[in-house]
Amino acid sequence: MKKVMIIMGSDSDWKIMKKAAQVLQDFAVDFEIHVASAHRTTNKALELAREAEKRGVDVIIAGAGAAAHLPGVLAAVTTLPVIGIPINATALQGVDALYSIVQMPSGVPVATVAIDGAKNAALLAVQILGVKEPELRKKFKEYKDKMVDEVAVKNDNIQKLLSEL
Amino acid sequence: MKKVMIIMGSDSDWKIMKKAAQVLQDFAVDFEIHVASAHRTTNKALELAREAEKRGVDVIIAGAGAAAHLPGVLAAVTTLPVIGIPINATALQGVDALYSIVQMPSGVPVATVAIDGAKNAALLAVQILGVKEPELRKKFKEYKDKMVDEVAVKNDNIQKLLSEL
Amino acid sequence: MKKVMIIMGSDSDWKIMKKAAQVLQDFAVDFEIHVASAHRTTNKALELAREAEKRGVDVIIAGAGAAAHLPGVLAAVTTLPVIGIPINATALQGVDALYSIVQMPSGVPVATVAIDGAKNAALLAVQILGVKEPELRKKFKEYKDKMVDEVAVKNDNIQKLLSEL
Amino acid sequence: MKKVMIIMGSDSDWKIMKKAAQVLQDFAVDFEIHVASAHRTTNKALELAREAEKRGVDVIIAGAGAAAHLPGVLAAVTTLPVIGIPINATALQGVDALYSIVQMPSGVPVATVAIDGAKNAALLAVQILGVKEPELRKKFKEYKDKMVDEVAVKNDNIQKLLSEL
Amino acid sequence: MKKVMIIMGSDSDWKIMKKAAQVLQDFAVDFEIHVASAHRTTNKALELAREAEKRGVDVIIAGAGAAAHLPGVLAAVTTLPVIGIPINATALQGVDALYSIVQMPSGVPVATVAIDGAKNAALLAVQILGVKEPELRKKFKEYKDKMVDEVAVKNDNIQKLLSEL
Amino acid sequence: MKKVMIIMGSDSDWKIMKKAAQVLQDFAVDFEIHVASAHRTTNKALELAREAEKRGVDVIIAGAGAAAHLPGVLAAVTTLPVIGIPINATALQGVDALYSIVQMPSGVPVATVAIDGAKNAALLAVQILGVKEPELRKKFKEYKDKMVDEVAVKNDNIQKLLSEL
Amino acid sequence: MKKVMIIMGSDSDWKIMKKAAQVLQDFAVDFEIHVASAHRTTNKALELAREAEKRGVDVIIAGAGAAAHLPGVLAAVTTLPVIGIPINATALQGVDALYSIVQMPSGVPVATVAIDGAKNAALLAVQILGVKEPELRKKFKEYKDKMVDEVAVKNDNIQKLLSEL
Amino acid sequence: MKKVMIIMGSDSDWKIMKKAAQVLQDFAVDFEIHVASAHRTTNKALELAREAEKRGVDVIIAGAGAAAHLPGVLAAVTTLPVIGIPINATALQGVDALYSIVQMPSGVPVATVAIDGAKNAALLAVQILGVKEPELRKKFKEYKDKMVDEVAVKNDNIQKLLSEL
Repeated sequence: MKKVMIIMGSDSDWKIMKKAAQVLQDFAVDFEIHVASAHRTTNKALELAREAEKRGVDVIIAGAGAAAHLPGVLAAVTTLPVIGIPINATALQGVDALYSIVQMPSGVPVATVAIDGAKNAALLAVQILGVKEPELRKKFKEYKDKMVDEVAVKNDNIQKLLSEL
Repeated sequence: MKKVMIIMGSDSDWKIMKKAAQVLQDFAVDFEIHVASAHRTTNKALELAREAEKRGVDVIIAGAGAAAHLPGVLAAVTTLPVIGIPINATALQGVDALYSIVQMPSGVPVATVAIDGAKNAALLAVQILGVKEPELRKKFKEYKDKMVDEVAVKNDNIQKLLSEL
Repeated sequence: MKKVMIIMGSDSDWKIMKKAAQVLQDFAVDFEIHVASAHRTTNKALELAREAEKRGVDVIIAGAGAAAHLPGVLAAVTTLPVIGIPINATALQGVDALYSIVQMPSGVPVATVAIDGAKNAALLAVQILGVKEPELRKKFKEYKDKMVDEVAVKNDNIQKLLSEL
Repeated sequence: MKKVMIIMGSDSDWKIMKKAAQVLQDFAVDFEIHVASAHRTTNKALELAREAEKRGVDVIIAGAGAAAHLPGVLAAVTTLPVIGIPINATALQGVDALYSIVQMPSGVPVATVAIDGAKNAALLAVQILGVKEPELRKKFKEYKDKMVDEVAVKNDNIQKLLSEL
Repeated sequence: MKKVMIIMGSDSDWKIMKKAAQVLQDFAVDFEIHVASAHRTTNKALELAREAEKRGVDVIIAGAGAAAHLPGVLAAVTTLPVIGIPINATALQGVDALYSIVQMPSGVPVATVAIDGAKNAALLAVQILGVKEPELRKKFKEYKDKMVDEVAVKNDNIQKLLSEL
Repeated sequence: MKKVMIIMGSDSDWKIMKKAAQVLQDFAVDFEIHVASAHRTTNKALELAREAEKRGVDVIIAGAGAAAHLPGVLAAVTTLPVIGIPINATALQGVDALYSIVQMPSGVPVATVAIDGAKNAALLAVQILGVKEPELRKKFKEYKDKMVDEVAVKNDNIQKLLSEL
Repeated sequence: MKKVMIIMGSDSDWKIMKKAAQVLQDFAVDFEIHVASAHRTTNKALELAREAEKRGVDVIIAGAGAAAHLPGVLAAVTTLPVIGIPINATALQGVDALYSIVQMPSGVPVATVAIDGAKNAALLAVQILGVKEPELRKKFKEYKDKMVDEVAVKNDNIQKLLSEL
Repeated sequence: MKKVMIIMGSDSDWKIMKKAAQVLQDFAVDFEIHVASAHRTTNKALELAREAEKRGVDVIIAGAGAAAHLPGVLAAVTTLPVIGIPINATALQGVDALYSIVQMPSGVPVATVAIDGAKNAALLAVQILGVKEPELRKKFKEYKDKMVDEVAVKNDNIQKLLSEL
């Protein structure tokens, strides 16, 4: 049973969206992935969202660029939390997608992450699933601890670079 | 038979959208009007757009504020031209709505007018219907001529104001 | 046991943040509420976030204006999902708060809602808790159904207003 | 008889504008194409717009960058619907052109599409002509159906890419 | 003989544009004033610009809001220097007018002043006329000297306000 | 001997700038205050900055709106640290002043605070003087402690407001 | 005797500013050119502006990037018309320079052209000098006529490119 | 004893931040440098700031990109002046970092420099230390004098380039 559904508006979004897939793999969270556009395949996108709950999905992650309606339209037809990723895909450099996703009207929230923030979208999904699964919350703690170690390594690198200045 | 369908996302948009209705009345173009939200009543909105052509509608006018998905979502499920009006309804003063409407991805255009530009949306609908109906094109010409006269009056006003400076 | 912790950076944010409190009351979700600033009372804010999980909190909602660091700083020291509300409190009309909340770096997500979107923040918290509590998911469905009815009423209002045009 | 007139402000816009030409060719819609600047060859541009209707043109498509006055100036002297394409041609990355085209004052609408959205401009022209020609509306339906198929192929690609992750 | 021609797109611009008229009166520079829209009365606007030189006009001042094409369109058909005033007239608070006026393409400059900067537009006209008329340059020097005195008075006011703090 | 010099471009900035004066009074830091414009009284402004060091001034605070050149121009002719306050004084709501102050080129820094952030400008001056005067640093610590107490009071207020919801 | 003084804040601006020099050479207008920074060599810059009139200069052209104070500071100390060129030199892509130049306060105008618009700055200088020198006005007319011919050539190119589509 | 502490949120900021280190080396100001993230290593970052004063640090320089909380969070827990450098690290090109750093709420200032302005951050630190150490103020004067010489050289270069035009 898939706990997370990832949807993207176009396969050109894969270079960003695969980071979400990788995080979920790292956390051993089962997920499914779909290309479905709010505008080109509206029926397909709506059907995926409407039936997600029945398939056991607990969180939806949707990425889109330009006038990025996908996350909002999915949120419209499901009670599951929807995480939206604005993708930098036009001359407006993601501001269009950000505003199209984050400025949802009252009643239909989308949990928006940073422009091109697919990694954080998946981490947020892990945090949400952690509400139900203590094991995931524990893994997320370990992930945070690992980041502390990584920063320590980076700090060492900088000391070396400084000495070479 | 209604030739134009006007849809707005919320009845709070009426103070803007009624200008579109007034223009269509002035041009004696039959129209219908609906409140239907892309996010709160997705099914209703989609159904209205899907069946519009069958009801004889030739042009759709849709106004929405914030993450304004309504025009794009309607355009997704109809072959009729859709005119989108970004409404100034949030702290971002209509830029969110403008980007959400105008930056549509390839394949699904929305004919976007100015922020709060409901009057121009209706005039554009008249121009589009004029492709089929020469009578409307003639009326639009008269409308343009009248604007010339109005500017002449405004010019007279300014000469008077100048003399009082 | 409180399931949601609401934090705001200043009591001047109450006029926005109370909408989140009202939604949680309507859904009968227990919550606690605090004023704690990332900059003026850093220790207090961090302590609240660090101990939230132990107190049984499952979701944190944080609202802040200007250089709105509060949601991100809380997210830094907890594994719980953090929902951030950018508040329109400066000349930049909430864009500063939006960017300060949504553009979080990799590793520490904040689930961002619209500028002044406190109501949606609470609804998102309900959706997240719904991952664990089917009863809440059911209530959210009813909430969505009620929105459909409300739009129908609004539609009737507009027909009346149109007839008076 | 040409049904669509495409105008661009400079031949450097061709790399964008040719997408509009290609779409019209694909739909077998006759069109003419001109380079005419609102600022450098004002008379020529105005004359083209003023006489378009007499030549049988039903829709005008105009693309321009920077202070993009061309679509608005053409709209000023014709009753035909004018579609405007803001072109990303300056340091402001198309925002200047977008605002110069979409923010038209009351009385003179321009149907604006996305920055560099020449393809959608042509599709919108097809939709507008479809008001008169049922055959075009049918072709547009087929075009939409083909997009559904293309998304299905893209979805398959992603499943493959996912398996290689 | 009028040396300056002031044009505005609408009489609603008068509250801003009259500041330009007042400055020219203060400097005893003869001027004429017109309401003429680039979009509603294109012929009239073009004719005014085309014949301005023959009438003895040396500088044109044009103010417009929204997609403010007026200054650029006048500049297109005259060799006289054109000063453009972006007017804050829409939800975009003058940024639309600023970009529409200042981002003119190569070959057709518009001398742009600040949003709502009608006073400076007239002062700039005086400076330009000063190239030919030493008397005006002298008056402008006196104007600058008077500003120094005014700042001295303001400085005194602040010392008083400070003492009352 | 005055340790801080406050300069503002216009007496209309007093409503913002007086907050800086009040903070310095609260910290018992001697200061002088001047109205001097980078554009209207350039000589006066430059002279004030050039001679500030000789008068014993250690920090300069300069506030200005619109194209806010004052802080940068003062910084150009002094070795003292200059704190710049962008003032919200035009349709661009302080963004023009912010960019004009913060984006200083290499070699001539201005320590920029928030739009209308006169209070913080004075606090920053206190912090800078604290580098030399331990007494001021101690006072600033007390100021920070007092903020903690104030937030506690605000927190109590909110609990009361919540109980009344 | 030099009629135009060109100043730039840094020699890195030469790649933009040389276009102004080339236009003035083409029009056979004598000019001088200087590197002088408002911030690094304030005295030099001010002196150049203060003495320009005595040297016979009639128009000043100043280009600068970032917090572009140069044009405004020169305008502060001269009665000559100053043309400002915002240069795209930072992450903000010229918007910082544009706002720093165009938003000048009342009393001290700068005639602003487009971002990187050095060519138009020189053409504007020619137009301004044309107020005094009919010969230059005539040359400018010829320049405009040549642009018409160039557009005709570009139009021919596009017809060829279209036939190859 | 280190007088300046430089902190950056990530080692990817080194290419910008090293310019600050170089300036401090040139001025012979002792400094320490750390990688510490407000979000990934909050405890470490806070500890560094809290103990900086005890270690003899007088000024803190902090650089960060995206939702750049680091400077503000350090400022929250120290009485030392904190200089913030917004780093251009996302699709928003540093505007997110700028707003996150400069728009600090009342009570907790951050002295903000330009996007990527690490060099100016160090020069500002030198100016601040100069309040206590006359020797540094003298060196800064020499630095300013050297800039004057450099501009003179650049001016010579341009004369040469002009002659080759």
